[in-house]
Amino acid sequence: MRNIKLTVAYEGTAYNGFQRQMNGIGIQQVLEVRLAKMFGHELKMTGAGRTDAGVHAYGQVVNFKTTGTIPTERIAVGSRCLLPHDIVITEAQEVDEKFHAQYSATSKIYVYKIYPHVKPNPFLRNYAWHIWRKINVDAIQEAAQLIIGTHDFSAFRAAGGTTISPVRTIMAADCQFAGDIFELSFWGTGFLYHMVRNLTGTLVQVGLGARSAKDFKEILDSCERKKAGATAPAHGLYLKEVIY
Amino acid sequence: MRNIKLTVAYEGTAYNGFQRQMNGIGIQQVLEVRLAKMFGHELKMTGAGRTDAGVHAYGQVVNFKTTGTIPTERIAVGSRCLLPHDIVITEAQEVDEKFHAQYSATSKIYVYKIYPHVKPNPFLRNYAWHIWRKINVDAIQEAAQLIIGTHDFSAFRAAGGTTISPVRTIMAADCQFAGDIFELSFWGTGFLYHMVRNLTGTLVQVGLGARSAKDFKEILDSCERKKAGATAPAHGLYLKEVIY
Repeated sequence: MRNIKLTVAYEGTAYNGFQRQMNGIGIQQVLEVRLAKMFGHELKMTGAGRTDAGVHAYGQVVNFKTTGTIPTERIAVGSRCLLPHDIVITEAQEVDEKFHAQYSATSKIYVYKIYPHVKPNPFLRNYAWHIWRKINVDAIQEAAQLIIGTHDFSAFRAAGGTTISPVRTIMAADCQFAGDIFELSFWGTGFLYHMVRNLTGTLVQVGLGARSAKDFKEILDSCERKKAGATAPAHGLYLKEVIY
Repeated sequence: MRNIKLTVAYEGTAYNGFQRQMNGIGIQQVLEVRLAKMFGHELKMTGAGRTDAGVHAYGQVVNFKTTGTIPTERIAVGSRCLLPHDIVITEAQEVDEKFHAQYSATSKIYVYKIYPHVKPNPFLRNYAWHIWRKINVDAIQEAAQLIIGTHDFSAFRAAGGTTISPVRTIMAADCQFAGDIFELSFWGTGFLYHMVRNLTGTLVQVGLGARSAKDFKEILDSCERKKAGATAPAHGLYLKEVIY
């Protein structure tokens, strides 16, 4: 039995997140149902991480076991007539039987895209958070550096989150303009639920001058969710890469 | 009575083209119905040009007469809570009573976007034509220059087109990469129905080596639609600018 690792890019707009859902369709479900035809049996996939409704991915990773006979190198191309166009398998490889998309991951990179412009852009409405004002890049960069290292990120964890440890390690946090779009990227060993969106919501407040980098540090140190800013909307967030 | 000129950007994916349609919803209809609330009376708009279902615009232009009292400088911002997010008024100005969005236009710029890559990109599926192979930019550039000037464009006119003259003047035709996306742009006094998409379909054949620039010239000179390539898909086309 082969253990197959897939790298998957998707636009999350039409889906109720990555995971199988009771209401709405999850991306995982689409992959399992549509690819079952290729492998000739039911598939049970494991994803590297959940993404919420509206969140996108350049490099989500899933794995599954199969007795199917299709050659690994034909999976990506073969999937193109089975999958809807907003879900694309960019790579497929056979991996060791012990490989587990979630537990084997050592770190992840998320990117959050912001469109700071006085006018909305109809082509970005599902792909970047529209902020109506200019943002101070230097202020955001200064604040973002404060999360590097190992911290208790309770201040940026979704209210009502689970009881797992709120301590995470961030290796890099960076921001830059790519054309008109301002991109925040976060590389860490793991992320709490809504952590990237909560960090972004607060960093944008810094970029708009509503808070300083010093305020940001105090929020982080306080471990109190209610002190931080609002959760940035889902449609600006991208799971860029899962590292093993 | 004021004559108002609007510049409108839209993503055409969800609409059955710009014009009022018997089946499906046209963008013009959305503008007329939604903005009527702002002006307090029924609106009858004139567009600079039709765009087909799936075609996008950065700078479509419409005009209409109104007795409404909203200040012109408030129209664009005021429209944002009335219009769906895939239609954005980027500019509004009061113009001379003789201004007519279609007849006053002296030229238009269309852009056609192509994504030449071995793998599909889920984020571009509605915004650029995906070509699975690399294209020869120099070959396309060479062929594109041949349409500059005044020509009978019957070879690139939709089959079953109307009886208006097939002679049009192209001032510029250019191509370049913007990141991963290959953009063809066409600046002309006017365009026949499907002309940009038919030109693009044939230029892509040149870019793939299926035809030469010399073949392209022969097709243009032949004035025979059946000699040219297939019509490029609607979703790569953008009405960029209307010039008055």
